[in-house]
Amino acid sequence: MQQLKQISVLLIGTTHPGNIGAAARALKVMGLDRLSLVNPEEYPSAEARARASGADDVLSSANVYETLDSALSGVHKVFGTSARSRGMDIPILDMRTAAAAMIAAADSGEQVAMLFGKERYGLTNEEMQRCHYLVQFPANPDYGSLNLAAAVQVAAYELRMQCLQQNQSQTSKPQATSSFCDGGKMTGFYQHLFSTMHDLDFLNVENQGSMTEKFRMMFNRMGIKKHEMDMLRGFLSAVNKNLKK
Amino acid sequence: MQQLKQISVLLIGTTHPGNIGAAARALKVMGLDRLSLVNPEEYPSAEARARASGADDVLSSANVYETLDSALSGVHKVFGTSARSRGMDIPILDMRTAAAAMIAAADSGEQVAMLFGKERYGLTNEEMQRCHYLVQFPANPDYGSLNLAAAVQVAAYELRMQCLQQNQSQTSKPQATSSFCDGGKMTGFYQHLFSTMHDLDFLNVENQGSMTEKFRMMFNRMGIKKHEMDMLRGFLSAVNKNLKK
Repeated sequence: MQQLKQISVLLIGTTHPGNIGAAARALKVMGLDRLSLVNPEEYPSAEARARASGADDVLSSANVYETLDSALSGVHKVFGTSARSRGMDIPILDMRTAAAAMIAAADSGEQVAMLFGKERYGLTNEEMQRCHYLVQFPANPDYGSLNLAAAVQVAAYELRMQCLQQNQSQTSKPQATSSFCDGGKMTGFYQHLFSTMHDLDFLNVENQGSMTEKFRMMFNRMGIKKHEMDMLRGFLSAVNKNLKK
Repeated sequence: MQQLKQISVLLIGTTHPGNIGAAARALKVMGLDRLSLVNPEEYPSAEARARASGADDVLSSANVYETLDSALSGVHKVFGTSARSRGMDIPILDMRTAAAAMIAAADSGEQVAMLFGKERYGLTNEEMQRCHYLVQFPANPDYGSLNLAAAVQVAAYELRMQCLQQNQSQTSKPQATSSFCDGGKMTGFYQHLFSTMHDLDFLNVENQGSMTEKFRMMFNRMGIKKHEMDMLRGFLSAVNKNLKK
């Protein structure tokens, strides 16, 4: 069950504090304890505490962030829940397969985050671009309104099931260290990349949004290893140094 | 997905009306629509409607019963959720396996009910004795407090997943009719059996509880087919007729 400690659930812009409390309870009952909040509307909150019902420890130790990028510092693999893919070039997994992928990532030493967007709208396009995978839950085509805390409960349940199955079929392995870059390294890289692209006039007002989006998704899909990052940053620095003013 | 229409979720003695509304939503989002309530503390309720959030149709069409036996009339297979088995001789399944068993029962034409007890205590021993199977959810050994509506959500999710997997691997089959007795037939049989046992002085004040319990669990485990029931009732009637006064 060690893998569950490497997986954080990240609620972005949550509107109803009751959902935050219910999510804390949903996590704890399945053995997860890492809750992160990005710009919650209300936290701390009495309603959240009431719904947490004994999972106050998970609730009160939640990390609160102002930006998604800061929350993803230290995270290697990002899974975003989404009812729609919106045509983005990001691989889509069902929740069960995603749980297997998350546990496998944790097994190889990675820190994993699972993102849940605002109750009404889900993740924005910009938030999805931080994701290596999008995760979908099965739903009634005529009524797909899965409650936020209920979705967290199903996700936590699948993660625990995946651990249980794996522990049945494997003997324990030594803890591995990820060879991939975490979110902090990636953020620094993208800043470097995009500012370089600006300096090159490769990015302009019109194409900037779609261009940075495509780059992010491409690198996220590949995953960049630490030694590769050194090469990439070295390359960008070389470009910077050699730009004509 | 036709099988989901043969599965009802039965909440017994629910204390918080919000859980009833959230359960209705949890069912509808996964394509289930049969909610039954046995002695709810508050129904209908404004809080339940608020939490149902668009699943008002499932909520308002819930069937309300005064006794569990009346709710189980017409039901062939009963699955009871329980954190503990309490040493009863009833087979225990994890939720995933239970979902497969429920869909298989529905496939063979049976009506299926899944029972959820009161928030604080779960099913009573007497309620468990109505069950053919007990269902357990995986949980943190240090904190097993799974919220009622969250449990309903996980159950409904597993049922939908099971249907999706089955529909992928099978072509559709003609609708079958169950050869097993429903709950109404079983209730009538137990009344007949126990009154006969009383007349025989086989049941007395001391052994009555444990004895009827063991009989119920044995017959439930076997499952009684319709033609077998005719034989059993015929046998009991023969006993009744031939009792010396």
